[in-house]
Amino acid sequence: MAQQHLDPTDPMAESACGDALAGYLRAQATEFLRALRLHRETGGDGGAPARTKARAGDNGSQESVDAARALRRSARRISASLHTFRPLLDTDWSEAIRPELAWLSGTLAMEHAYAARLERLLLALHRLSGAAVLPAQTGVPGDSADGTADSRTAGDTRPPAHPAATVERGNLTVGAAKAGALLERQLTLARTRAHSSALQALGSSRFHAVADNIAVLASEVPLTPAAATADLRPLAGAAEERLTDAVAALPLVTAGNPYNAEALIHGLSPDPAPHPQDAPWHQVRLLLRLHRYAREVLHGDSAPVDVRLLAAGQALNRHRDASEAAAAAAQAARTPRIAPATAYALGVLHADQRHEVEAARFAFQQSWQMQTVGTP
Amino acid sequence: MAQQHLDPTDPMAESACGDALAGYLRAQATEFLRALRLHRETGGDGGAPARTKARAGDNGSQESVDAARALRRSARRISASLHTFRPLLDTDWSEAIRPELAWLSGTLAMEHAYAARLERLLLALHRLSGAAVLPAQTGVPGDSADGTADSRTAGDTRPPAHPAATVERGNLTVGAAKAGALLERQLTLARTRAHSSALQALGSSRFHAVADNIAVLASEVPLTPAAATADLRPLAGAAEERLTDAVAALPLVTAGNPYNAEALIHGLSPDPAPHPQDAPWHQVRLLLRLHRYAREVLHGDSAPVDVRLLAAGQALNRHRDASEAAAAAAQAARTPRIAPATAYALGVLHADQRHEVEAARFAFQQSWQMQTVGTP
Repeated sequence: MAQQHLDPTDPMAESACGDALAGYLRAQATEFLRALRLHRETGGDGGAPARTKARAGDNGSQESVDAARALRRSARRISASLHTFRPLLDTDWSEAIRPELAWLSGTLAMEHAYAARLERLLLALHRLSGAAVLPAQTGVPGDSADGTADSRTAGDTRPPAHPAATVERGNLTVGAAKAGALLERQLTLARTRAHSSALQALGSSRFHAVADNIAVLASEVPLTPAAATADLRPLAGAAEERLTDAVAALPLVTAGNPYNAEALIHGLSPDPAPHPQDAPWHQVRLLLRLHRYAREVLHGDSAPVDVRLLAAGQALNRHRDASEAAAAAAQAARTPRIAPATAYALGVLHADQRHEVEAARFAFQQSWQMQTVGTP
Repeated sequence: MAQQHLDPTDPMAESACGDALAGYLRAQATEFLRALRLHRETGGDGGAPARTKARAGDNGSQESVDAARALRRSARRISASLHTFRPLLDTDWSEAIRPELAWLSGTLAMEHAYAARLERLLLALHRLSGAAVLPAQTGVPGDSADGTADSRTAGDTRPPAHPAATVERGNLTVGAAKAGALLERQLTLARTRAHSSALQALGSSRFHAVADNIAVLASEVPLTPAAATADLRPLAGAAEERLTDAVAALPLVTAGNPYNAEALIHGLSPDPAPHPQDAPWHQVRLLLRLHRYAREVLHGDSAPVDVRLLAAGQALNRHRDASEAAAAAAQAARTPRIAPATAYALGVLHADQRHEVEAARFAFQQSWQMQTVGTP
C-alpha cells in the first residue's frame, strides 16, 4: 500500500531495515557532537551580537554560525527520524528526547531567524525605494510623531520654488528609511535576546542532558528487539502519505492561478498576525521535511537528489519567511507615535511580503505539479 | 504589405473604401447628436453630484449617465477615425476638430473616472479588511493627528484585560475605515469639480461649435476627391502595425512571468506618481482602441467580435484603472496630519493596486499570446 510511493529503481530501497535507521541515527548523533565541539571552539558562546551590525553572518565568526546551523541540522534529523520510525524505537526514550530536541533546535533557530527576517525586510525596502535605505547610509533621524518636520531634513537642495512638492518627495524616502531604522531597532533587539537565550540554553543542565543522550545515541541506538530486521518502507510510506494528504487539502487550484490576490485578503483585518490561512502551508512544510529525512534514512548517502522536492521545500521556506516578515512589518506599524510616512512605508512593505507569500504558494504549486507529472 | 493583417474571410473587407468611412462617420455623428439630445432631456446638466453618495451611477439618473457615456463613445470613435484615415479627409477640417473632440471626451470622462476610482479603492479596502469599511456604516471619526485616541472609539466591548491588544486590533480596522473616509472625501471633491467642469464645457460656445461640426458631419463627410474609391485597408493596416510595434516594445517576457514584482519597484521611491513604467502600457491601450475602431470602419455592423482583442483591451483598462487608483492612494497618504494607522492602510492599498497593475500586465500578455497563436 504505502510501498507504491517508493522509487522501485533505487537499489538501496530494497534493503532498508532497522540497521539502516540505526546507522543514520548514529551518523547524525556524531554530526551533532562534532558541531557542538566546533561551536564551542569557535567562540559560539562568547559575546552578544554587535548591535550596529544586524546582517546575517556578522555575528561572531562564520565558523560559529556554520556550527550552530550544523547543530540545528542534525537535531532536526534525529527528532524527525524518532517521529517517523517511532514503532521501531524504545518508546520511553524517544518520547523523552523528542521535545528536548525540538526545544533545542527551536531556541537555536531564533537568532538566525531574526537576522534573516531583518535582511529580507531591508532588501525589500531597498527594492521598493530604488535607493539605499540602510540607516547607516542615509543618516536617518529618529522616529518621532512629527513626520512632516523630520522630512525637511531629507537634504533636498533644490530651490524652494515648489516647497509642497519637495516635502512630498522627501516624505516617502524618509518614510522608507525610517521604516528600515525602526525594523532594524526592533529586530536587532529581538535577535540580541534570542542570542542570549541560545547562550543560556547551551549552558543549561537541560542542554547537557540532551548532549549526554546524543552521545549515547552515537554509539548505541535503542531499537526495539524486532526493529533490526523490520522493513522501514511502510513507516516512510506513511510519512509520505501524511504529506500528500496535507498537500491535497491545500487550495492548490487557487494557488496555481497567478495573481489570485488571496494572500493579502484580510491584510487590514483586525485579526492579529500570523495569518490563519498560512497555517496549512506551514504544516506541509514540516511534513515535507519529515518525508525528505525519511528518504535520507532509506537511501543513505546514495539518496538521489530530488530537485522537485527541493524546489517545493524552498518555496515553502520562502512562504514561511515572507509570512513572518509581513507580520513583523505589521507589528512595527503598531509602534506608538511613529510618523505617518513611516507607517505608509510599513504598509507597502507588509503588502509586498504578503504578495511574496502568494508568489511562494504559486511556486510550490508549480513544482508540485511537475512532480506529479514526472512520477507516473 | 499591410493587407495581410486583415481577415480575408470577411465579405465586407473586400469592399471597404471611402464610402464605408463616410457611412461610419455619419452613423457616429448621428449617435453623438442622439446622445446629446438624450443627455439634455434626462437632466444631465442639472444639479451637482450628491456629496454623500459617491458610487458610480448614483449621480442623476441612469439615463443621464448612459447618455454621457454614449457621447464619449461616439466622440472617441469619430476622433480615432479622423486620425487613422487622415489622408482621406479634408485636412484643415479634420485637424481643427480632432483636438476639440479630445477636449470634449476628456472633460466628460473625468467625473466617471473619479467615481470609478473611488469605488475601486473602497472595494479593495473592503476586501483587505474582511469587513465593511464604508464610512456611513462604521461611523468613522474624522482624521486627526491623534490616531491612538481615535482608535479607542472602535467599539471593542471586551473587558480591558489586554488593553494594548485591544488598541492594536482597533488601530488597523480604524485605519482602513479612516483611509476610506479620506479617499471618499478627496475623490468626491475631485468628482464634484469634474462634474462642474463638464457642465461648464457642455454650456460653452466651444462645445456648441463642436456640436455644430458634428451636425454637419452627420449629413456630409468632408472626404477628399480621391477618397470615395480609395482602399481603407492600407491605413487600417498601418494602425494595426503601430499597435503591434508598440506591443513588441513592451516587456512581455517579464509580464508573462507571474509574480515578477516589477510593478511595485520604486513603490516607495521619491519620484511622484504616475509610474513612468506604466506609460508604454497606456500607449498600447490607446493604439489598441484605434485598431479596434479601424476594424469597425472596415467591417461595419458585420464586424466579428474578436474576444481576444476584447480581453486584451479589458486588461489594459484594468491596468490604467489600477495605476491611477494606486496613485490616488499614494497621494492621499501625503495629506498632512493623518494618523499613522490611516497611512499604513493607504500603504497596503497602494501596494495592492500596484499588484493589480502587475496582474493586468500578466492578463494582457496571456490574451495577446493567445491572439498570436490563434491567428496564424
